[in-house]
Amino acid sequence: MVQNFMIKIQTIGFCDIIDITERVINAIHKSKIHDGIVLVFCPSSTSGITTLEYEPGCIQDLCDYMESAAPLNAEYQHNLKWQDGNGFSHLRSAIMPASFTFPLIKGEPVLGAWQQIVFVDFDNKTRYRNIMVQVNGE
Amino acid sequence: MVQNFMIKIQTIGFCDIIDITERVINAIHKSKIHDGIVLVFCPSSTSGITTLEYEPGCIQDLCDYMESAAPLNAEYQHNLKWQDGNGFSHLRSAIMPASFTFPLIKGEPVLGAWQQIVFVDFDNKTRYRNIMVQVNGE
Amino acid sequence: MVQNFMIKIQTIGFCDIIDITERVINAIHKSKIHDGIVLVFCPSSTSGITTLEYEPGCIQDLCDYMESAAPLNAEYQHNLKWQDGNGFSHLRSAIMPASFTFPLIKGEPVLGAWQQIVFVDFDNKTRYRNIMVQVNGE
Repeated sequence: MVQNFMIKIQTIGFCDIIDITERVINAIHKSKIHDGIVLVFCPSSTSGITTLEYEPGCIQDLCDYMESAAPLNAEYQHNLKWQDGNGFSHLRSAIMPASFTFPLIKGEPVLGAWQQIVFVDFDNKTRYRNIMVQVNGE
Repeated sequence: MVQNFMIKIQTIGFCDIIDITERVINAIHKSKIHDGIVLVFCPSSTSGITTLEYEPGCIQDLCDYMESAAPLNAEYQHNLKWQDGNGFSHLRSAIMPASFTFPLIKGEPVLGAWQQIVFVDFDNKTRYRNIMVQVNGE
Repeated sequence: MVQNFMIKIQTIGFCDIIDITERVINAIHKSKIHDGIVLVFCPSSTSGITTLEYEPGCIQDLCDYMESAAPLNAEYQHNLKWQDGNGFSHLRSAIMPASFTFPLIKGEPVLGAWQQIVFVDFDNKTRYRNIMVQVNGE
């Protein structure tokens, strides 16, 4: 059995880290599926999904890392070719997965106590995002 | 229901980024599955799969990033131990996922408009690669 | 059909890379599922799962990379806010996926000859870990 849900959020970009755990769990409970794989995915080329202890320190550390790995103001070929400003967004999105999968067992999503599912918007402006949650099981 | 397909490609390695989106979508349409999870995977320890806006600027930016993160000519223990030359390939492959998952909803693969699925070959020579596409759903 | 298994391991942390391939394959064979998607996942915010040629050179190269990307002794906001010492563990866990998926086809797990599934513990102490293996298919 397959059930699909959509989470709608507004983001401010640059490295906007949003905890979507509770909304994902709500979707799982609505699905009435008790065992299977949960897929969280965003159809976007300027964002990513990962897991993180959602507290201000870890949030800042992940943003600091992204700034050192793919700095906002570095020279990007994407920007030079298209007179665009979000080369850093595309690169960060390529190095962080677009999807996250985890197991649902006996009706309960299996996640660590300090392991939140986070959507990370790397774009250089405010965006409205549709995040898909698919529950696939029995 | 589970359907498996194979995409065969030839690559030149080093950081050869190949757009496989259309071949993945063709496999999905052949599967006749309309809702489920699509898994794209390469059985290899010197490549990766991610998503990217497939245009020359973003392609170059991702290769530049990989060269700064895991340079071709740095000293690698893999090379020293095995008199091998592809230590950079193995490291890059370990830091980019080997698989990509995304949802199929009502017969349509859900991907962003500028979000292409790319296979990235990091090996240091020409390779023939078999990429698996599995459609799992109903 | 969905079958769940648990792999229990003890780790020493910091960048402890453990080959879990054989235990994952044992779980698959117990499931009696022959075609489907295999999900390997750890409910933790201080570890990750990837694939690697499991030999001492590649193991050292991945640890060296992690030390350069997210050094043990750098300043982390997580440490400053909580008087904690594992900011590096949380950051490394955020930049390496918590889950790995790959296909099972005609009874055989599809993996490369030198592509082992590795659990990487980034925490700063000994841990007991429960790694979930879910086989989802027919």
